[in-house]
Amino acid sequence: MRAVLGLMMWIFATGTMAEPVTTSLGQMQITPVVTGLDEPWGFGFLPDGSVLITEKAGRLTHVTLNAQPVSVKGLPKIKADGQGGLLDIMIPRDFATSRQVFLSHSVRQGRGAGTALSVGELSGDGSQLNKVQTIFEMREGSRGGKHFGSRIVEAGDGTIFLTIGERGDRPAAQDLGTHNGTVVRINRDGSIPGDNPFVGQEGALPEIWSYGHRNPQGAALDLQGQLWINEHGARGGDEVNRVRKGANYGWPVIAYGRHYTGGKIGEGTAKAGMEQPDHFWDPSIAPSGMMIYSGKLWPKWKGHIFIGSLKFDYLSRLNSNNWQEERIENADTGRVRDVREAPDGTIWFLSVNEGALMRMGPG
Amino acid sequence: MRAVLGLMMWIFATGTMAEPVTTSLGQMQITPVVTGLDEPWGFGFLPDGSVLITEKAGRLTHVTLNAQPVSVKGLPKIKADGQGGLLDIMIPRDFATSRQVFLSHSVRQGRGAGTALSVGELSGDGSQLNKVQTIFEMREGSRGGKHFGSRIVEAGDGTIFLTIGERGDRPAAQDLGTHNGTVVRINRDGSIPGDNPFVGQEGALPEIWSYGHRNPQGAALDLQGQLWINEHGARGGDEVNRVRKGANYGWPVIAYGRHYTGGKIGEGTAKAGMEQPDHFWDPSIAPSGMMIYSGKLWPKWKGHIFIGSLKFDYLSRLNSNNWQEERIENADTGRVRDVREAPDGTIWFLSVNEGALMRMGPG
Repeated sequence: MRAVLGLMMWIFATGTMAEPVTTSLGQMQITPVVTGLDEPWGFGFLPDGSVLITEKAGRLTHVTLNAQPVSVKGLPKIKADGQGGLLDIMIPRDFATSRQVFLSHSVRQGRGAGTALSVGELSGDGSQLNKVQTIFEMREGSRGGKHFGSRIVEAGDGTIFLTIGERGDRPAAQDLGTHNGTVVRINRDGSIPGDNPFVGQEGALPEIWSYGHRNPQGAALDLQGQLWINEHGARGGDEVNRVRKGANYGWPVIAYGRHYTGGKIGEGTAKAGMEQPDHFWDPSIAPSGMMIYSGKLWPKWKGHIFIGSLKFDYLSRLNSNNWQEERIENADTGRVRDVREAPDGTIWFLSVNEGALMRMGPG
Repeated sequence: MRAVLGLMMWIFATGTMAEPVTTSLGQMQITPVVTGLDEPWGFGFLPDGSVLITEKAGRLTHVTLNAQPVSVKGLPKIKADGQGGLLDIMIPRDFATSRQVFLSHSVRQGRGAGTALSVGELSGDGSQLNKVQTIFEMREGSRGGKHFGSRIVEAGDGTIFLTIGERGDRPAAQDLGTHNGTVVRINRDGSIPGDNPFVGQEGALPEIWSYGHRNPQGAALDLQGQLWINEHGARGGDEVNRVRKGANYGWPVIAYGRHYTGGKIGEGTAKAGMEQPDHFWDPSIAPSGMMIYSGKLWPKWKGHIFIGSLKFDYLSRLNSNNWQEERIENADTGRVRDVREAPDGTIWFLSVNEGALMRMGPG
């Protein structure tokens, strides 16, 4: 008989268990795998079957099947304040040999903070990051505590994408002399790929891959290896964007929706030389982590985009052919901060309210 | 906040969940971690947080937190018949670097079978045993399908103990010219330690460490590094023995209880030159896997001996100071085939009836 990996769970002291959820593919189970997390932000699967989870206040936890979770020591210096802190984590494809783990986080800059990307090597027992170095730090500027981004994606060619919010400094998103409101692309050692679009252009920062973003907190490759992001927009203007090299996504010149104060934004919804979103939400859902599904367990969802909604407590499934949305939700979903596909094709996500890493599997 | 590793479980299709059990230390929870196993026999914890489980018919399964269980390929040749098959597994202390896994199993010998010990190196992804070699095989003799033993224990000095039943050939347990009814001790490469008690003794097999055993299916080191075993005895004569180098444990000359046919055994219960058990059960409980507890999670149980009962479906806790026994049982315990302490101090065991690896943790 084949051993069954059904749903797995940590039983709470209160006895909370797996809860069913009805989806377009029938009933599934949403089960807490790890609980007791404080503002979890990102997570990743290691090839040894364990999981790493970030928490915004600056903790990285290593979770395995057979022991208590371990707080990983040796993190880079993190300034946890406002929306900043320890944010995303990316496990590169060569982790089994490199042991490298990439972390995005905020760092102190003068009296403010900025978004940075660090890398370290996880010790064999999963308890310690060694050889930690910060390979990218955004150019100093904004002092505010908001719109840091950030998600990290390993491109097919081994370069690294990092999304950065405009830090509340709207005009800076159009200024190629700052990293605000951009997707940057760097090599794993922090050097700059020679084929980045603005290399050699006077007044432009060479790390920039695309710009005119507001606050992208979700990013993923599709099944063809193309980068997609989502962005927290203005009111009624959250976006999903296919990210083209060198392209301008228009913030704050064009946008759907209005400022949260009610005011009109920039010049309208479209302008020559600026990209249109592939999808936008009105009302806004506050989109967070993003994953494009392989189809491994549920072939009908192949290529569909999963995004967490922080505002309406659901997991969004977007059919990327027609942009129809399904809201996957039950009492346990809560504010969804990140979503990833597990090696077995189940869909795991972070619920901020529950302080939990959840697994959605067959029901 | 510290991440909580509460109890973990695989939800069955039927919705079976963690069940409470009342112990002398209060209520605990017994939770299935893996289900769907067919006659599970042994298991071990890997330092990466995963678990390996043997099933008698000849399957070894690697279980991690984030993916479906994997059947490990490249096992040694196994003759699964009667009580034989793939039996115990031992993960050595240096696994993180050596990647070695030791397996006890039956092998074909002419028209019969014998107990053997093999070792292989687990691939990095946990899916394959490489460089498999059989480092010990008992001397050919018995043809019957019973009393193979066997458990594997890594001694403090790095040598390996293997327990072997008398294969139903009672007199052979007193014959140092056979491996029947012995504990053998070998080096990791299969060579024979020069300080084994019968090295150089004519007519005696040099692998033998102790003899006069009936069918030892449990073995463990105590907290001082001393080897203990338990044995399936005759009716009313299951034993726990501290294993002394070169000692004779008396089967079938002396024993507690009677033959299952009702007949008297040998010469009685004691004889000069033969060891007395430290504890025996009358009626017999059919003792299986054995673990001596560190006290990590439940200090009051430090040094106590845990043994599975195959006959009465409970987990036995023996206070090794006074040999008082506690029966830990609920509807989920079933025939208990093996028991081990997890790295976090929880107690895990195999239930044959449930086809499950169970975890007993705080309630």
